[in-house]
Amino acid sequence: MTEHTYAVIMAGGGGTRLWPISRKESPKQLLPLLGKETMFQSTVARLERIFPPERILVVTVEEQARVMREQVPSIPKENYLIEPAPRGTASVVALAAAVLKRRDPQAVMAIQTADHHIRNQDLFQYLLRTAIDVAEKEYLVTLGITPTFPSTGYGYIQQGEPLNGDYKYPVYMVKRFKEKPDEATAQQLLRSGDHSWNSGMFVWRVDAILSEIQKQMPDLFKAVDEISSVWDSPDKIDVVKKIWYGLQTQTIDYGIMERAERVAVLPAGGLGWSDVGAWDSLFDVLLPDMNGNVSVNAQHLPLDTHNALVYSVDDQRLVVTIGMDDVVIVDAGDVLLVCKTDQSQKVKNIVEHLKKHNQEKYL
Amino acid sequence: MTEHTYAVIMAGGGGTRLWPISRKESPKQLLPLLGKETMFQSTVARLERIFPPERILVVTVEEQARVMREQVPSIPKENYLIEPAPRGTASVVALAAAVLKRRDPQAVMAIQTADHHIRNQDLFQYLLRTAIDVAEKEYLVTLGITPTFPSTGYGYIQQGEPLNGDYKYPVYMVKRFKEKPDEATAQQLLRSGDHSWNSGMFVWRVDAILSEIQKQMPDLFKAVDEISSVWDSPDKIDVVKKIWYGLQTQTIDYGIMERAERVAVLPAGGLGWSDVGAWDSLFDVLLPDMNGNVSVNAQHLPLDTHNALVYSVDDQRLVVTIGMDDVVIVDAGDVLLVCKTDQSQKVKNIVEHLKKHNQEKYL
Repeated sequence: MTEHTYAVIMAGGGGTRLWPISRKESPKQLLPLLGKETMFQSTVARLERIFPPERILVVTVEEQARVMREQVPSIPKENYLIEPAPRGTASVVALAAAVLKRRDPQAVMAIQTADHHIRNQDLFQYLLRTAIDVAEKEYLVTLGITPTFPSTGYGYIQQGEPLNGDYKYPVYMVKRFKEKPDEATAQQLLRSGDHSWNSGMFVWRVDAILSEIQKQMPDLFKAVDEISSVWDSPDKIDVVKKIWYGLQTQTIDYGIMERAERVAVLPAGGLGWSDVGAWDSLFDVLLPDMNGNVSVNAQHLPLDTHNALVYSVDDQRLVVTIGMDDVVIVDAGDVLLVCKTDQSQKVKNIVEHLKKHNQEKYL
Repeated sequence: MTEHTYAVIMAGGGGTRLWPISRKESPKQLLPLLGKETMFQSTVARLERIFPPERILVVTVEEQARVMREQVPSIPKENYLIEPAPRGTASVVALAAAVLKRRDPQAVMAIQTADHHIRNQDLFQYLLRTAIDVAEKEYLVTLGITPTFPSTGYGYIQQGEPLNGDYKYPVYMVKRFKEKPDEATAQQLLRSGDHSWNSGMFVWRVDAILSEIQKQMPDLFKAVDEISSVWDSPDKIDVVKKIWYGLQTQTIDYGIMERAERVAVLPAGGLGWSDVGAWDSLFDVLLPDMNGNVSVNAQHLPLDTHNALVYSVDDQRLVVTIGMDDVVIVDAGDVLLVCKTDQSQKVKNIVEHLKKHNQEKYL
């Protein structure tokens, strides 16, 4: 680990999959979803075991940056890169790489998401150090997650030959990226044994990723090159705005990774990783009691109740459940959600419905 | 119908079966459980179609009487008979009969409960008029309810021979009263075709019931005789208190009806009667939508939801349900209940648990 390693936290999203707790004005990464710390604070704390705060960058939108600076005063103000508007992860990565290259041409950057959860922090630290070692050899490295069920909610990465080198964890060349599969394909991929979930965690040298961007998305390369050239001038804000709104929204996976060369994967098992992408994921992230029940900030009195998640913003309120199995109960104050656990993805349908009918106050 | 007919509303109970809405300080009869009127107001409105308010009496405890007088100013203050403490329905009936006899020796009284619901009010009016006709012939008349399912929650009344007379509805002599049966017996009673549920609605001449009380519960007879002798004197309150606390708690069914002679029953079908004894009964009392969902005072947004009751004290709160079937959701502000419909009787176990652990604030 050299002083040329940096972490870049992507934190622009306004996820509604954990509605009604995650809201437009307070997206999940800014909330103490799983305990006392907000997810952004936990992400920074996890990274601070490896990177000093001066080498942690955050890419986000202005409104969120204000809250984040309050939540984590340790990260220097100039390390916040402000997107005038979300334009997808390809743009975020390109901007961060261009700005970092200007600051440190030898920089290696580890991309993290602000709203994921990792239970096994020690293992994470070791894996990331190995990923950095591999990235220094000019590989684009992805942290894959060993699948535990046939998920249709993640993209998959197929591994090829093992990578030669004196690494502490197995590393493979990537054979193929695959988009979110259907149920049958997911079953197949799980059984294959050579597929990982795409966690969205990447590590690479900034010059390596920028050269891929130049090759595959030349317009984006030109845009961030122009931005980085005025980064320390008074024109910065105007130039960023002008250029940014003209960018096409694109993900790094689809825009770059699927066709990139020299891509490696570290398949991580036992990391306890979750993108906390729906209410049912909290059963994996938190420890249920012997009846399978989980409660967060709630006074829950269960009778004949199993596998119930009770999540509340008001710990004075008593939540009684009788004869309930496999249910998620979320008390957000102005909204109460009662949902069969295996249907918690349908929260997005409710959010769409409320949007369509201009129920802004509930969004 | 003569000016000798009276209604007596029994309203002393502090039911907890509709907890967390029905509470110690505000029992269900004092609440607008099913709409804008409280159940007590609905009961009075139903009776005022037959009896002028001057001939409607209420037996209750002091704290509840205060609220009832505010809710129904039409009933004269002196028509409230105050129990110093609940001593069962036998004592209530005996007191009302003794006081009424003093006022009107030819009185016929119709006993009603303050917290039952009757949908078909026209039919109720006709049935009650017939019951009064029968009672004037010195029968003790019970209004039976034709069973619609094998309930184990009610006592049953077996009918015998039809009663001769020019009545608008069929009337039978009562063969036997039966206590709440077990499941198998209830199935049998339902199939028999000659059993009704005991609704707790009775009609009789005061002299007829007092003579039965004198025969079967002489101590109670003596007690209410003594009370009625001082009813208009300044000693009344002291005497009532002294005597009342010495009474044994007993129901009219067990104490009198089971062994009484000349008991008749009017089996009522189609009355839409409910004792609203548990949350699941609201599905019978209120009209569900095409998905079987019922909501009371709630903003309910259901997705893939069937047979859900959503009851709220706060109509500003949005209640979203996804993939929920056969569930009762009751939002009482400080308590939220989520309960499988067929287990709503278990609410009493929760109430007992809270009592045991001194959680008075939730009772």
